[in-house]
Amino acid sequence: MKCTVQKDKLADAVNRVMKAISSKTTIPILTGVKITSGRDGITLTGSNSDISIQTFIPLEEDGNENAIVHTPGQIVLPSRLFSELVRKLQDEDVHIEVDSRFIAKITSGSTEFSLNGLDPEEYPNLPIINGSDAFRIRKDLLKDMIKQTVYAVSVTETRPVLTGVKWMINDGKLSCVATDSHRLAQRSVSVENGEASGAHILVIPGSSLNELSKILDDDDEQLVDIVMTANQILFKSNNVQFYSRLLDGNYPDTSRLIPTESKTTIDLATKDLYRAIERASLLAKEERNNVVKLRAEGNQVEISSQSLELGRVFETLVPERFDGEPLRISFSAKFMMDALGKMDAQSVRIHFVGPMRPIIIRPIGDENILMLILPIRTF
Amino acid sequence: MKCTVQKDKLADAVNRVMKAISSKTTIPILTGVKITSGRDGITLTGSNSDISIQTFIPLEEDGNENAIVHTPGQIVLPSRLFSELVRKLQDEDVHIEVDSRFIAKITSGSTEFSLNGLDPEEYPNLPIINGSDAFRIRKDLLKDMIKQTVYAVSVTETRPVLTGVKWMINDGKLSCVATDSHRLAQRSVSVENGEASGAHILVIPGSSLNELSKILDDDDEQLVDIVMTANQILFKSNNVQFYSRLLDGNYPDTSRLIPTESKTTIDLATKDLYRAIERASLLAKEERNNVVKLRAEGNQVEISSQSLELGRVFETLVPERFDGEPLRISFSAKFMMDALGKMDAQSVRIHFVGPMRPIIIRPIGDENILMLILPIRTF
Repeated sequence: MKCTVQKDKLADAVNRVMKAISSKTTIPILTGVKITSGRDGITLTGSNSDISIQTFIPLEEDGNENAIVHTPGQIVLPSRLFSELVRKLQDEDVHIEVDSRFIAKITSGSTEFSLNGLDPEEYPNLPIINGSDAFRIRKDLLKDMIKQTVYAVSVTETRPVLTGVKWMINDGKLSCVATDSHRLAQRSVSVENGEASGAHILVIPGSSLNELSKILDDDDEQLVDIVMTANQILFKSNNVQFYSRLLDGNYPDTSRLIPTESKTTIDLATKDLYRAIERASLLAKEERNNVVKLRAEGNQVEISSQSLELGRVFETLVPERFDGEPLRISFSAKFMMDALGKMDAQSVRIHFVGPMRPIIIRPIGDENILMLILPIRTF
Repeated sequence: MKCTVQKDKLADAVNRVMKAISSKTTIPILTGVKITSGRDGITLTGSNSDISIQTFIPLEEDGNENAIVHTPGQIVLPSRLFSELVRKLQDEDVHIEVDSRFIAKITSGSTEFSLNGLDPEEYPNLPIINGSDAFRIRKDLLKDMIKQTVYAVSVTETRPVLTGVKWMINDGKLSCVATDSHRLAQRSVSVENGEASGAHILVIPGSSLNELSKILDDDDEQLVDIVMTANQILFKSNNVQFYSRLLDGNYPDTSRLIPTESKTTIDLATKDLYRAIERASLLAKEERNNVVKLRAEGNQVEISSQSLELGRVFETLVPERFDGEPLRISFSAKFMMDALGKMDAQSVRIHFVGPMRPIIIRPIGDENILMLILPIRTF
């Protein structure tokens, strides 16, 4: 193998596949990045047991030359060292030449590196995914969907399926839901070509979605192609392919958790509520449980918390709307801030059924988003 | 005590004194910030066993009203909570009112905090420093002096005096030197009014100088007043006073460490040399010792390093000047990068006496700076 690549293109491509590479893997070759020089360009691959990322550098793009392949071939190089090295090179061109003993000579300007590589034949193959069950979604929408649901997945492995986000594709609509059994987040959106793919339910690991969100660039209006199989999902965008395994197991039916009635309904400015809870949480955190109290009465909402050692705090808010019965309820400040922080709407509508029933938070003006948190008994 | 303060002024002042406050102190009252409302303004104090910081908010400044003192008084409040709270308040004005049980009511907009404070009478007094032995230095010069010497102090307590930087004031000149016995940094500068103060030698803890550098704002041309006593030093700038204790013990005579002759003298572009060593260090780090080799011969300088497991690297540099004998020498990549990274000059001049004698690095065009590193035997 022998090729020449633009340093910036290479650094960018390596940086993306690094997101899939763990230094803690038990399979030594997976600590490496696989580089393939082919007829059309250069492909980089990184993988761990959950996700695989492949980036492609085409020889030419928008009339600019990215790379020259002198001799096609493959090599696996130590990923961390290679990525740091590429980032720190001074010259614009990077030459890579690999001999039969898998030693890669990397030269750039006055720098000459010899890196001991590994046999690319030993690198595991990526899953084969053929594209019958597929749909498309705008990149910014996909990122929003991930942000607004993934924070609510379970972080413990007690029920492994809850560490994932459930995706339901049906009739041109994608619905996502995540819950750790103390709170829940759900969001739905229309997708392109979703009718053709039939109905699907799949559970994607939360950690995969977080990594996916990081490697999607900011070209928001672009479409991402999504292809599903029984145990894998593939996201394709520009020159990046992102594979994730799916979680096994039955995801619980969450629809019956969501109360349909409301005894108290309050509309509040999202930011004001967020900041009031954040300040009350300063004391609540010190008590280690991070629970704040909400009292709604006489067209006034009061958020409070108390620490025997440090003192107490009262925050007063005037709701934009107040319907129904007076109310006293307690909840986790962190859970409420997590939910509010994911909403872009100016105002939120909060439904209460009673001091021990789920609290529903929705952004005003968007029926596709619903957040739920369970209250905590303190009264 | 009862006063009203501009939120931003208060947040800024608290933020600075926090640099002196440690949550790990064995004296509980020192985890607090002391607030004093006086006739002219509001003073905040934070302290630990090494340093004390005092910031002053004058009632008026540049025609703007910063604060109103309704009733003078003092209180000690939990510092971390108070600083977070002030930062997160939404309104511009913060009202503080303290009752006889040291409970502080802090109100701002719709927020009402009650914080349990401590008796200010129990707060230790700051050292009394009267100003006979004093001089002045420009803020940017002071920051440069700190940056260019403090990195070389010892981080182990084997010889406590080496954890400090030695300052010598004599005849209008300030000379600073730091060494951990493997490397040395020294810098001198002219100061104002230094003649009047007589000759002084003092050793300031490196950690104090690091904190001082952080709290000095970016108004670079301003002068800092420095007052010395036998065991304390005080830095005064704007409305900030920074006190540090001094280190006891005799600082070793470092002048005899610095070779006066040179067998090989090389001039190199600072950045190119830094980057070449940085890349060579990628492999050297993996071998844990982080040692790189330098070979100078036939008007060429080669930096190299090698890892049995990963590979090898050669960097070639063409010096701007090369005088004297060919040379092979090894040294710590980190030490050389630390020294080079502190120099603003385009080029550096490096003097070598032999493979086991100290290496001297000086920025070309500034005789006031000298860095020294000891080589490491590998050949």
